[in-house]
Formats: sequence, structure tokens, C-alpha cells
Amino acid sequence: MGRDDVDFPVAVVLPAAGTGERTGLQTPKQFCTFLSRPLISFTIETFERIPWINCIVVVVARESHDLMLHIVQQFHHTKVKVVKGGTTRHRSIFNGLQVFSESAEGPVIPRPKVVIIHDAVRPFVEEDFLLKITLAAEEQGASGAIRPLVSTVIATTSKGFLDHSLERTKYRASEMPQGFLYDIIYQAYQRCSESDFEFGTECLHLALQYSGTSAKLIEGPPTLWKVTYKRDLAAAESIIKETLSLSACLISGAMAEAVELSSRLQKSLELHHMTSSASLSEIEEMVTGFEETQHALLYPVVIICVNLCMSNEASDIQKNDEPAPIMDLSMKAKERNILLYCVQIIYSKVPELWERSVARLTEITEYLIRDRNPVLTGQILRA
Amino acid sequence: MGRDDVDFPVAVVLPAAGTGERTGLQTPKQFCTFLSRPLISFTIETFERIPWINCIVVVVARESHDLMLHIVQQFHHTKVKVVKGGTTRHRSIFNGLQVFSESAEGPVIPRPKVVIIHDAVRPFVEEDFLLKITLAAEEQGASGAIRPLVSTVIATTSKGFLDHSLERTKYRASEMPQGFLYDIIYQAYQRCSESDFEFGTECLHLALQYSGTSAKLIEGPPTLWKVTYKRDLAAAESIIKETLSLSACLISGAMAEAVELSSRLQKSLELHHMTSSASLSEIEEMVTGFEETQHALLYPVVIICVNLCMSNEASDIQKNDEPAPIMDLSMKAKERNILLYCVQIIYSKVPELWERSVARLTEITEYLIRDRNPVLTGQILRA
Repeated sequence: MGRDDVDFPVAVVLPAAGTGERTGLQTPKQFCTFLSRPLISFTIETFERIPWINCIVVVVARESHDLMLHIVQQFHHTKVKVVKGGTTRHRSIFNGLQVFSESAEGPVIPRPKVVIIHDAVRPFVEEDFLLKITLAAEEQGASGAIRPLVSTVIATTSKGFLDHSLERTKYRASEMPQGFLYDIIYQAYQRCSESDFEFGTECLHLALQYSGTSAKLIEGPPTLWKVTYKRDLAAAESIIKETLSLSACLISGAMAEAVELSSRLQKSLELHHMTSSASLSEIEEMVTGFEETQHALLYPVVIICVNLCMSNEASDIQKNDEPAPIMDLSMKAKERNILLYCVQIIYSKVPELWERSVARLTEITEYLIRDRNPVLTGQILRA
Repeated sequence: MGRDDVDFPVAVVLPAAGTGERTGLQTPKQFCTFLSRPLISFTIETFERIPWINCIVVVVARESHDLMLHIVQQFHHTKVKVVKGGTTRHRSIFNGLQVFSESAEGPVIPRPKVVIIHDAVRPFVEEDFLLKITLAAEEQGASGAIRPLVSTVIATTSKGFLDHSLERTKYRASEMPQGFLYDIIYQAYQRCSESDFEFGTECLHLALQYSGTSAKLIEGPPTLWKVTYKRDLAAAESIIKETLSLSACLISGAMAEAVELSSRLQKSLELHHMTSSASLSEIEEMVTGFEETQHALLYPVVIICVNLCMSNEASDIQKNDEPAPIMDLSMKAKERNILLYCVQIIYSKVPELWERSVARLTEITEYLIRDRNPVLTGQILRA
């Protein structure tokens, strides 16, 4: 089973009209930013990277419509169609599906064979799982992701006492993504009741009840989880940071010690890119280079200038002038989503001292790359 | 309803014998460390702070017994009794409860009227909620925390298709803590079957089935959530960091500008403690002071030396010697859980430049306090 099996048109509907009241934040969680980019853009990117997905319909609340158009433009999303949502989840999904239906002027966008319904706040879904869902939907008419239950589910009496508890092994949590033959889910929405629209939340239920299609259930990985509470924002950020590739690092000075240092760092950190012998103007050139290639469009690029000093003398990029030139350069770079830091390491002939410094250099470099924190750009740290 | 209503003995049983396989980590999650302290110690601390709780029975796997004793000693937990667990959750809880039961030599620890059962991996439970659970347990015999379901719960056919979905509003997720009259839950465990011990997970179910007690269900806050997956570790860390009070900050130099700077920082960050005119030896004294008062026993203390320079000259704590004295001091302090950082701010008569520096100082200080990262201690940052 591979992506070549998808020889039919596939579209995605992403309901994103929620207010996110459970996070306790002002901003709906799909618009909370991570590394200067809203969560929904990460989810969209996931689908855009998949060649067999043709169109992504994002359904947003009326008041978020302009914001969403701006996000699509800012992050160069090309497969997205933005649609206004309804007052409930089911109404919003139905609005999304109608983009593909006939209107007086004919269909707005070519009708897909399979439509994937996903959540804007589940950014970590992977291609191989989407493939499983899509192929099962094409074969069975409907498919959905499930996960084991984390807590026991219980039924309560009207007075708030335990009635009975469900046997955990017989039940599953229904998650997203779900896949449907377009005609099946569209028909289900056309036929379902006002009460379904108002109080329902489960698309699989509609497909079963109104199109007679029982969905194939596929166990998904824990990464399918939905950003729901405020604490989930920290979890999402940590996953986003973890999945980023490690980035550029410069070594100043071309003498033997610097070259050795460079290769040691590269080994222990699997750095992405590395040049040696960097002056301030070379760093500036590198920043411009990243800017022009739009490397920093979707994720911040990290540049760490490792400044090997053979003595305690201040070097080119680190004179005690005000304002420090490296700080100024870093401010400009930050505006372009490029995070520039310096670490100074002083060469020592005493092996113990030198090893301690190299260890600290590794630790600091790793921390800066992983944390990608804009507050510390332009600092000259000491290894 | 207040804590004065608890005029009866209350004990806690904390099952912590899980292997945490769902996090995908080597270390069981209850022993994962946050700010140099294992998660379980945060949970224990929550209960130890509550005066009406007499005893906390922590049930751990055989192989974690010594580790747990070490944790109890290291963090000065005084109400804890460590017990070896069984092969399943129910067996472990039963082992915990037996600490209070009669043995040949009489009861080991006085039997409580109410016992609270909680999870080691739910560190954020609050006193007022524990009070509700305890009073309801005393009145009704049993009580338990519930939360709304985040996902729809579905029943599957034997072939992996959707059978039906449950109406979300009629069901709840059963969470922890739960409270019981000791005699009711102990009797339930004495009577329950081998199959219950082996496959069951729900204490409320045992109380209902074997002691005929239907638990009172109380909706709890989202903070009751259980650290289950790897992503939850990041979430837990962010909550722990958020709840910490802000810490010490020094201003060097007693001139008017430093005093003004001090009061501005204090205002915008609500700093905990502040002295002015700090030399290296004064910082050293402060570190020793924190050490002696055991301030840093449970949480790292942050000290930030704000170094106001009237010109670009290097100051006392920041000469370019090797090794830098502030780095050495910070290494020693770090071993005692005291995190020491320096921020240098250069006075400028140009209001714009000065305001920019003050803004950056605030930003850096806030970041250091919030992040509490040991990698950056001893650095001299530039505002």
C-alpha cells in the first residue's frame, strides 16, 4: 500500500471555527502562535506537503475570515480555500463540503472522490496514517481514527451518582482524521436533522445513520491528539521544536583548533550546516542568503557564531562598543525569522579546562538550537 | 464547607508502580524530573502541605523501592510510608490499603476514616477539591472526580467497524482523586475476584459491586489530568514553572539610576526579593543564605545580578579573566539548586537608547526567571 494507490482526487475539510474556550485563553487555540506561526498553519502545511491531496478547505468563524486569509498569504499556502463556518461543528463541516457541490453556476471546485475531515488543532498527523484513512474510506465508504481510552468512562445517575462503568476494552475514543466517500458524507449531511446539526459532534454517526455506512476504524498513534487545554499548548510547542532540524553554525578562525572544534560539534549535534572562518560581514551575508531563499518562511533559522579566541582579547564581533554590532545585526535578522547567537570559547592549553569549555559549548549550542528563543538573540555567551 | 469540617483521620494511597510505557521513555513518568525533582515528589508535596492529611502511602514497584526511599529523604517528605506494589493497579492499591489493616502485631498505622486514592502522575490537584472529595466520601461512602469526555466514545464490532457511538452528554471520564470510607473500599478489595484484580482499573466499580456503595461524582478542574504521554511531560513542566513565585534579583550600584531601575523592574515583574549594591562577595553571601535556609530544597532559586554600568568599562563581576569568577560562583551555586545569572545594562543619557535597554533587561529577566534553565547560569547577558 503506497501513495501511488491514491489515483483519485482527495480533498480535506478542516473545521477551525471553534472559540477554544477550554484553553481559557483569548485567542482560539488554532490561532495561537508557535515560533511566530499560528497552529493552524502547521496543520495546513502537513496537508500541503502531501502531493495526492488537492485541496484544503478551512472553515473559520466569520470574525476570523480576514485573519485566516492573511495567514494563508503570509505563509504561502497554495492549496487552501477559506470558507465561513456555521454556529456548530456539524454546520461548519457542511459549509466546507458545500464548496464542492453544484451551485447555480456549477461546482465551485471539482468534487473529490474522498474527503478527509480533520481538526485544525491536530497538527501532528502523518502522511502514512492519512493514506490508511483515505484508502479505507475509498474501499469502505467511511473510516475513522480511534485511540484506546485513557480514563474509564462512566454513566451517571440523574442525581450525580455512579450508575455503571463501561468496560474499557470494549470502547474506543473516536479521534480525527476521518475519511469518507464524498457522496456518502454529503448525503448524510443533507439528510440529517436539526437536532443532529445542533447537538451532534460525530461524523461517523451521521454516515451510519443517514447513509447506512459503517466506518472502518483504524487505531492511530498518540500524536493524533487534539490541542484542547492550555497545557496542550506547551506540549505542542515542545513537539514542534523537537521535530525541527538543527541549523546553521559558524566557526570563526580557520586554524587547526577551530577546525577540530567544528568537527566535534558537528558530530555531537548533527548540525545542519557549517562554515568556518566567519567575520561579521560573512555572518551578514549568510543572513541575507537565508532571507533570499525563504528558508525562514515556515520555521526560524538558527545561526550560532562560535567564536574561538586564542587568548582573552576581544575579537572582531565582540568589541565592547555601544551598540554592539552583533546585537544590531541580530535585531535585523530576528525580523526576518533568523535567530542569531554568539558563543565565545577561549582556547586553553590545559586539556582539562579546554574539555570543560568544549562540553559547555556543546551544551549551550544544543540549548540555543532546541529552544529557539528570540529573547537571547545577539547575546555573546561564554563557553 | 471548610477544612475545619475534617475532624476525622484522612490518609492517601498513591499508586506509583506503573512502568509508564505510554510515554515511550525509559524512566517511568512518576520519576521523570522537573527542575531537578521527580514528578512524584511534586504530588507528595501537594498532600504534605494539607494539614488534615495524616499519612501518604506511596506504592511503588519492587525495583523502585530504594529510589523512592531516597526521594523521600532528599526532599524531606515527612508523612510518607513507602510500600511495595503488586503486578496490577488494583493489587498495588490493595497493598497500600493493607498498611492500615490489622496484622498479628496490630495495625501498622492507625486506620483512617477516609482514604483518598490518587495517582502519582496527577501532581496538580488542589486542596479545595480534595476537601470536596473527602467530605463527600465521609457522607456517601465513596466519591470520585469526573471530567467531560474530550472525544466521542464508540463501540466497535469484532471486525473493527463502528457499532455505535455513545451520546457524549450521558457519560463522563472517571478521573482521580477518589475518596472512600476506609472500611468500604477495604471490604471491596477483600471480596473482589481474581479477574477484578487482574483486569479491572476502576475503584468506584469495586465499591459499587462489592460494598453496594454508589459513589458521589464531582466534576473536577482540567488540572486533574494525568501525565500519560511524552508530550504531557512538557505540559507538566510548563505548569510547574508557571506556578513558581518569582525570585531574588540584585541591583549593583546604589546611585539614583540603579534605584530607579530597581523599582521599575520590581513593578513590571513582581519580583520576590531585591537588594541593591551587590558586589561579588555580597552575591556569595546571598547564595550561602539561601543554602542555609533550605529555600532551594524543593524549587530552584533564581538570582539575577543586574549590573548597571555608567560607562562601557568592565565592572567588578565581569572582568575578562579566565576563569570568570561569576561563572565559578554560579557553578557552585547550581550544585545547591541556586541559579545565578548576570545581566549587564549600560547607562545611556539618550532616553531612547536607555528605554530600549530597560525593555530588554525586563524581557531577559522575565525569561530567565520563567525558564529556570541551568545551562545559562554564570552567563553575563547584555540588555
